[in-house]
Amino acid sequence: MDEAAQPAEHRQPLTDEELRGLHAYWRASNYLAAGMIYLRANPLLREPLKPEHIKRRLLGHWGSSPGQTFALAHLNRLIRQRGLNVIYISGPGHGAPATLAHAYLDGGYSDIYPDRSQDEAGMQRFFRMFSSPGGIGSHCTPETPGSIHEGGELGYSLAHGYGAVFDNPDLIAAVMVGDGEAETGPLATAWHSNKFLDPVRDGAVLPILHLNGYKIANPTILARIPREELTSLLAGYGHRPHFVEGDDPQMMHRQMAAAMDRCIDEIHAIQRRARQDGDTSRPRWPMIVLRSPKGWTGPEKVGGHRVAGFWRSHQVPIPDPATNPESLRELEAWLRGYRPEDLFDEAGAPAQALRDLAPRGERRISANPHANGGLLCKALNMPDFRDYAVPVQQPAAGYISPTEVLGRFLRDVIRRNPTNFRLFGPDETASNRLTAVYEASGKTWMAQTLPEDQDGGHLARDGRVMEMLSEHTLEGWFEGYVLTGRHGLFASYEAFVHVIDSMFNQHAKWLEKAKLELAWRAPIPSINLLITSLVWRQDHNGFTHQDPGFLDVVCNKSPEVVRVYLPPDANCLLSVADHCLRTRDYVNVIVADKQPHLQYLDRDAAIRHCTKGIGIWEWASTDEGAEPDLVMACAGDVATMEALAAVEILRHKFPELKIRFVNVVDLFRLMPDTAHPHGLSDRDFDSLFTADRPVIFNFHAYPALVHRLTYRRRNHANFHVHGYRERGNINTPFELAILNQIDRFHLAISAIDWIPALRDRGAHAKEWLRDQIITHLDHAHAEGIDREDIRDWVWSG
Amino acid sequence: MDEAAQPAEHRQPLTDEELRGLHAYWRASNYLAAGMIYLRANPLLREPLKPEHIKRRLLGHWGSSPGQTFALAHLNRLIRQRGLNVIYISGPGHGAPATLAHAYLDGGYSDIYPDRSQDEAGMQRFFRMFSSPGGIGSHCTPETPGSIHEGGELGYSLAHGYGAVFDNPDLIAAVMVGDGEAETGPLATAWHSNKFLDPVRDGAVLPILHLNGYKIANPTILARIPREELTSLLAGYGHRPHFVEGDDPQMMHRQMAAAMDRCIDEIHAIQRRARQDGDTSRPRWPMIVLRSPKGWTGPEKVGGHRVAGFWRSHQVPIPDPATNPESLRELEAWLRGYRPEDLFDEAGAPAQALRDLAPRGERRISANPHANGGLLCKALNMPDFRDYAVPVQQPAAGYISPTEVLGRFLRDVIRRNPTNFRLFGPDETASNRLTAVYEASGKTWMAQTLPEDQDGGHLARDGRVMEMLSEHTLEGWFEGYVLTGRHGLFASYEAFVHVIDSMFNQHAKWLEKAKLELAWRAPIPSINLLITSLVWRQDHNGFTHQDPGFLDVVCNKSPEVVRVYLPPDANCLLSVADHCLRTRDYVNVIVADKQPHLQYLDRDAAIRHCTKGIGIWEWASTDEGAEPDLVMACAGDVATMEALAAVEILRHKFPELKIRFVNVVDLFRLMPDTAHPHGLSDRDFDSLFTADRPVIFNFHAYPALVHRLTYRRRNHANFHVHGYRERGNINTPFELAILNQIDRFHLAISAIDWIPALRDRGAHAKEWLRDQIITHLDHAHAEGIDREDIRDWVWSG
Repeated sequence: MDEAAQPAEHRQPLTDEELRGLHAYWRASNYLAAGMIYLRANPLLREPLKPEHIKRRLLGHWGSSPGQTFALAHLNRLIRQRGLNVIYISGPGHGAPATLAHAYLDGGYSDIYPDRSQDEAGMQRFFRMFSSPGGIGSHCTPETPGSIHEGGELGYSLAHGYGAVFDNPDLIAAVMVGDGEAETGPLATAWHSNKFLDPVRDGAVLPILHLNGYKIANPTILARIPREELTSLLAGYGHRPHFVEGDDPQMMHRQMAAAMDRCIDEIHAIQRRARQDGDTSRPRWPMIVLRSPKGWTGPEKVGGHRVAGFWRSHQVPIPDPATNPESLRELEAWLRGYRPEDLFDEAGAPAQALRDLAPRGERRISANPHANGGLLCKALNMPDFRDYAVPVQQPAAGYISPTEVLGRFLRDVIRRNPTNFRLFGPDETASNRLTAVYEASGKTWMAQTLPEDQDGGHLARDGRVMEMLSEHTLEGWFEGYVLTGRHGLFASYEAFVHVIDSMFNQHAKWLEKAKLELAWRAPIPSINLLITSLVWRQDHNGFTHQDPGFLDVVCNKSPEVVRVYLPPDANCLLSVADHCLRTRDYVNVIVADKQPHLQYLDRDAAIRHCTKGIGIWEWASTDEGAEPDLVMACAGDVATMEALAAVEILRHKFPELKIRFVNVVDLFRLMPDTAHPHGLSDRDFDSLFTADRPVIFNFHAYPALVHRLTYRRRNHANFHVHGYRERGNINTPFELAILNQIDRFHLAISAIDWIPALRDRGAHAKEWLRDQIITHLDHAHAEGIDREDIRDWVWSG
Repeated sequence: MDEAAQPAEHRQPLTDEELRGLHAYWRASNYLAAGMIYLRANPLLREPLKPEHIKRRLLGHWGSSPGQTFALAHLNRLIRQRGLNVIYISGPGHGAPATLAHAYLDGGYSDIYPDRSQDEAGMQRFFRMFSSPGGIGSHCTPETPGSIHEGGELGYSLAHGYGAVFDNPDLIAAVMVGDGEAETGPLATAWHSNKFLDPVRDGAVLPILHLNGYKIANPTILARIPREELTSLLAGYGHRPHFVEGDDPQMMHRQMAAAMDRCIDEIHAIQRRARQDGDTSRPRWPMIVLRSPKGWTGPEKVGGHRVAGFWRSHQVPIPDPATNPESLRELEAWLRGYRPEDLFDEAGAPAQALRDLAPRGERRISANPHANGGLLCKALNMPDFRDYAVPVQQPAAGYISPTEVLGRFLRDVIRRNPTNFRLFGPDETASNRLTAVYEASGKTWMAQTLPEDQDGGHLARDGRVMEMLSEHTLEGWFEGYVLTGRHGLFASYEAFVHVIDSMFNQHAKWLEKAKLELAWRAPIPSINLLITSLVWRQDHNGFTHQDPGFLDVVCNKSPEVVRVYLPPDANCLLSVADHCLRTRDYVNVIVADKQPHLQYLDRDAAIRHCTKGIGIWEWASTDEGAEPDLVMACAGDVATMEALAAVEILRHKFPELKIRFVNVVDLFRLMPDTAHPHGLSDRDFDSLFTADRPVIFNFHAYPALVHRLTYRRRNHANFHVHGYRERGNINTPFELAILNQIDRFHLAISAIDWIPALRDRGAHAKEWLRDQIITHLDHAHAEGIDREDIRDWVWSG
């Protein structure tokens, strides 16, 4: 066993007085944590506890709280003694009583919520609001000062911690990892984040694995494997674990103080070696394993059942004090055991001795500005996106990969913002053709390198591109990065962005509360998700890679925080990306492919179009401002190309036809303005889509989404939406379009079907169109490729 | 270093002849794997290679293939020599060339697809179909004989392997884990599955971690940490790793054979100790670490770049043989290096010597019936669900927890199917009130137990309830379990089922292909997802726990394979669950809460109602068969309760009003019959919802979903859907309903607004309703609970 794995108890960094102070601080935190679960009155127990002091509905989670308050009290000591800059991330489920108690004790809570002042009346309000309707939650919700991690859904604490310390060389994120949480996939792989942390440029994460022993109703895996096995696992993850184990508070304080001192010493030594001595070896970062009883210091037994140190302490340990006198006595004995009279002064404020133990000002964990990252946020230094525009002399004349163009823009965003912007992607930055970014920076990589990595590997200790084959970890890093006020973009294969559906949901919920209800939270940079390697060019990868349904998940979230853009070409993508990178407090979803696609709009036209978000393309229309026979609408690159080609076919077949061509970039323009800030008024919508003419809408994703956004519109009954219908396998691109009926031929057939004047006289044209479909499918199957001309055969000016 | 970690090369189980045979088999596999990427003609290279022999579009992935064919060739040896029963799961991305080559060589492929026969013409067809339009994919798609794991989305191989061997004591799942895949969260935690494998009752998983070294364009983490660190990690996961490392085929064959022999010996020893000696200690299961060059045996250099042993061999190593004569020569030299003339006979069939090395019949990996699990599937022995029905004398008179009732039914399903059914849930079976199941069986747990676990812990080595705090692992186990022909049910908190959105998508895609296109795949039991701890009773857990959007993800998948049920009460839940457990080839989503809810239908009424899936509740209606003034529709428990209460209010206020009450259980009844097999015809739909009367639809989930399903209906413009509007925090249940306007008062207001006759004379009633809302919100905030009467105040007969 190496030195680091020695039990820490043998070293005694604490004086007896310090130990007494720490213990008192911890008792005060625990008292508050228990008090907020139970008490609606008599918060300081200045009179005997009576049923009417007990809340009507007992909610909240005691189990994880005392372990967390223990770690928090010890972090305070380090911050004060060493002048550290620390944020705290609470991974275990329902850990809010601990963080709330800590924030209340150090005064940060009252600074933000003056009515919950540090006095008896304020404490009573503080208790009452906890887990009460109209009050605050039992997770570290956005309302919690000092929190950037709610933890309602488990598994993202470590990734959030790493995201927070990237490019913050002096910051330490102390991340309490729940042993239940540790069973989730996202947490299990996030340990490997240490291979992506540069000790020169980045701060440090101090993981504290809390072996609390139990989940809701089960032991945890990591608490029930032998210690050697756990040590082996953590060392295998690349850490040096320090164990703090027991239940005797005095012993535990000494162990914890020693372990924390050692960890900070090791962190500083690693940083010194890297920063001063130029040591480029990968450090084995220290961490703590805190094995303490679940519900520590709470009641040992209730109703004949073991509670402390067992899963029965997960929520409310004593269930019925308002109605059972014996329970009331047990509760009172438990709470008085913390001796609140020693911990709070006459007025009900924390005793001076405790106040002296809290850090000051912004060094308080509850008030650290990194946990309110908008405060520290600097706007990006943006290159002029117009400089990256591709020339388009004529619409639909040449092919360009939109993401390749975007890559050049992002390259210069990276260059101009060397400590403020990162690009995230799961081993796909090159595949997604953003390769130009490597001219500015490599991929962060602290693990071993080999000579052959020089050949296009682009690995760098200080790279700005973050690649790991875990969408969960990337999204977690990215969230931690923006929550602490920095900027980024995450590029993912479209089908696999579903992997982070639930993370997106949770971040959108956080954003909504922070943005709409918490004025003290400064706006943070948006999460920018570039959805690429799109369904229509996943013909070769097959059915598993064809899923454009993420947009349906996005549209369920609050209109205040979500935006969806489908730029049809490279210049539009530039305009959209520039806009998104400048925004705050959104999740921006940008759908743009990596394959070469036709280009339609020159620089200025693209800007005009994207600024409106929706518009008529007059050069592709034949209605000349008159009421059209048909509106051909589209959103998405391939959908646009096929819609244009369909118009071309219809023009040839029926030269007199009046067709209006509408392209949608900003998807929420389709919604009513009463339902979404980007929505069009009914009048504007009708002026585009008419009141009664057939609309063929060729959509990138599942067609139901367009119906969902437009069902209240006057002309909705005439909307005929084509989109992905879950038909695919190994195909050619055009075959895939045909199978799902988003191709030019099916669109033209649909137009003939829905334009009353063509229903009869269009029969011959429909026959010809059906022949075309069969011919193309035959060719694709025989040759394994599309007919060479098919993509070129579009509007030719 | 313990004995198990010794390099295996020192033991030599192979004779020289065996080694030659293995090597020839491997060469043949590699030849086929490379051939299918490149060749459209001249499959046996019987003439000089020419450009016209090369496919028009080169697709497929060479990189991972030779390592996989290597493992497969060695598995054949074990199967033959020891009579093992083995399935193979291919974790690395795009591993299909390996598995396809193997299936073609052992004849299993031709058995299923006779046109791809074992002769020159068949081989040519086999090559042409690979990654060609209308052909087969580059993953182990459902079309692949012997596959239960497509691997298009990475991360689920290990969990699938464990699911397959549960309750299959003689089966071994050899799971090739890609080192890229190993970076995903789901894979990283799935290693802990070994704590849930009972060596008595279950088979064994043999993980083969393939240190291929590279992903698409990056090294992998696990290949770039020191070997001691990797050993430590794997030992920390609870495994005994055996390393096979190198690039010299002869050495590697000897190492691999020795390692595989040792692993099988260890597996058998573990099983013997547990089964015969009653050893109850947790085994450390063996595994193999295969470190071999990516693109092994392929070209070393192409265009001056390193290819073999590097990420450049990921896809098509030589990109341009059809157009570049030098490349064509390189390709020919590479392919001829395998000496196909020695490997295939005159007709083009594998040489007799190779055939002799393949297992026979169902022991071939390509033909193992466990990988076509429907073949082995036995129907569940079902208790009569009617026996579990709760008495309902009168609708809406008493509260019962639906899942508690379901728990009793599931208890007896478990009792009657002791080796054929499992219940899955992430630490929530008790929380979700399915606790009756513990009367039949405990929770599988092979890790350490403590005396206090006796107190309600329900841990058991042979438990039928699977609990781990990883929805990914559970879903993976469950999929592996049903894909091998067994049954189950997975209960999850509603908000967190989004964690497995992408797994659901992938399984639904697999099912669709297997069901609609592959007659040889026998139907498998359905995935039954019980979505519980529902949004409307997550008032206390807050916003993070409120997300009913999984249904939107489900509705994007093929109507042939997805079903959604929202039983309004316990008897309906029983009827629905009984139906779902009997079905094949679906994903059934059942939405039912754990909290006590009002009961409406007695046993027989519930069966009638669920059989129809949608229906008028006459006892709650006042239209007496006449054309109503209003249709009040609903789906979901709380939505139904509030809709009933709204009708009651309207009845009191406007006794002459004719209201029709419609409840929806089977959500897809709302769709047109042309779009979903469960859809109603327009005529039936209109007869329920009328052609022109206002419909207030109170929906469990996001309201847009109802619009999406009904937008084509004649009366859709009069549908006014209430549902979750993403408004919530810490609330009371009724407050949460009010915030989202699914409560009785808002429904009644909506009815008054939309019934033309009430618009004027309803003003007074609306004022009263608004007062009620304010009063209830005030009360909830003051007391922290709902007004006691609010839930009871519903239709009273």
